[in-house]
Amino acid sequence: MQYPEPISKLIEGFMRLPGIGPKTAARLAFYVLDMKEEDVFDFGKALVNAKRELTHCSICQHITDTDPCRICEDQTRDRSVICVVQDSKDVIAMEKMQEFRGQYHVLHGAISPVDGIGPEDIHIPDLIKRLQDETVQELIVATNPNIEGEATAMYISRLVKPTGIKVSRIAHGLPVGGDLEYADEVTLSKAIEGRQEL
Amino acid sequence: MQYPEPISKLIEGFMRLPGIGPKTAARLAFYVLDMKEEDVFDFGKALVNAKRELTHCSICQHITDTDPCRICEDQTRDRSVICVVQDSKDVIAMEKMQEFRGQYHVLHGAISPVDGIGPEDIHIPDLIKRLQDETVQELIVATNPNIEGEATAMYISRLVKPTGIKVSRIAHGLPVGGDLEYADEVTLSKAIEGRQEL
Repeated sequence: MQYPEPISKLIEGFMRLPGIGPKTAARLAFYVLDMKEEDVFDFGKALVNAKRELTHCSICQHITDTDPCRICEDQTRDRSVICVVQDSKDVIAMEKMQEFRGQYHVLHGAISPVDGIGPEDIHIPDLIKRLQDETVQELIVATNPNIEGEATAMYISRLVKPTGIKVSRIAHGLPVGGDLEYADEVTLSKAIEGRQEL
Repeated sequence: MQYPEPISKLIEGFMRLPGIGPKTAARLAFYVLDMKEEDVFDFGKALVNAKRELTHCSICQHITDTDPCRICEDQTRDRSVICVVQDSKDVIAMEKMQEFRGQYHVLHGAISPVDGIGPEDIHIPDLIKRLQDETVQELIVATNPNIEGEATAMYISRLVKPTGIKVSRIAHGLPVGGDLEYADEVTLSKAIEGRQEL
């Protein structure tokens, strides 16, 4: 005997999610069976609704339930600065900071020749199009500090600099609250390189 | 700005599951947005269906989509032996072994005075009722090898033994493939205690 069909379907569903293997999936599925019926229905509805109602903003490609998204629509935000990020989650992280008042552009990926991802596969052409109406004066490239993110930043910088728009890259260095002792060499050398006068 | 509402609802849904905190929930939610629409719908349906279609078997309390469950209905199985387990997952584990041909009784818990769980809160009264028609000759108590499981086993044994039904407990000892060096003292002492002649 295996699991009854409804439960094995649920286990399969959980197993499609990242980082969830057969054991965790079974544990979660059995947990769901003990949950309140109402909560399970809400969760099921939330899944379907999230997929159905969310799209990418036609301007900045950020995930949104309105188009254009609330950030692109917000008239109080500075339209002269665009922060380029790899992922919608990065926008959320930036917004939590509550300091950046410009706009965003979400690439949904980074250039990675190894994986066959070129500039046309992420939203770089859309970004270039956004720069044509001359309102944008600065591009802050906040792609991830790894090989793909750096390559993407370099690519964008080379493409955009000739147009006269300022292109900057977020600083690399020691995380606040971190410990110098435990920092890796590359981070440390970046921290020294980017030192600022006090 | 926070997450758009459909996604924050989905994150909340994931956070209700055990072992999933806000960061993992957000990661899973964003993953869902990138999944195929069809897969997401199937998953949502599986959630609701599992909750709606599964009940506990009225005989053995195992999770099932038919009542009585397939094991209780199976005429080829030995009705003289009942294996008592704490959880439906334990039935699945036993069935994977493909050796035990008796029936089961799922307690859905174990006696735990600390948590206020007594014999009436788990399915012990149902078990006693099952023993009354004299078909059952042996009870194999396969509750977990921890304090609650042992207490439950002792309780059941004391209750059932006077009726003349044989009560046995699954063996404790070194797991197959394990290493004596890494075994804890209690397991090792149980392994010595339960030694068998070769």
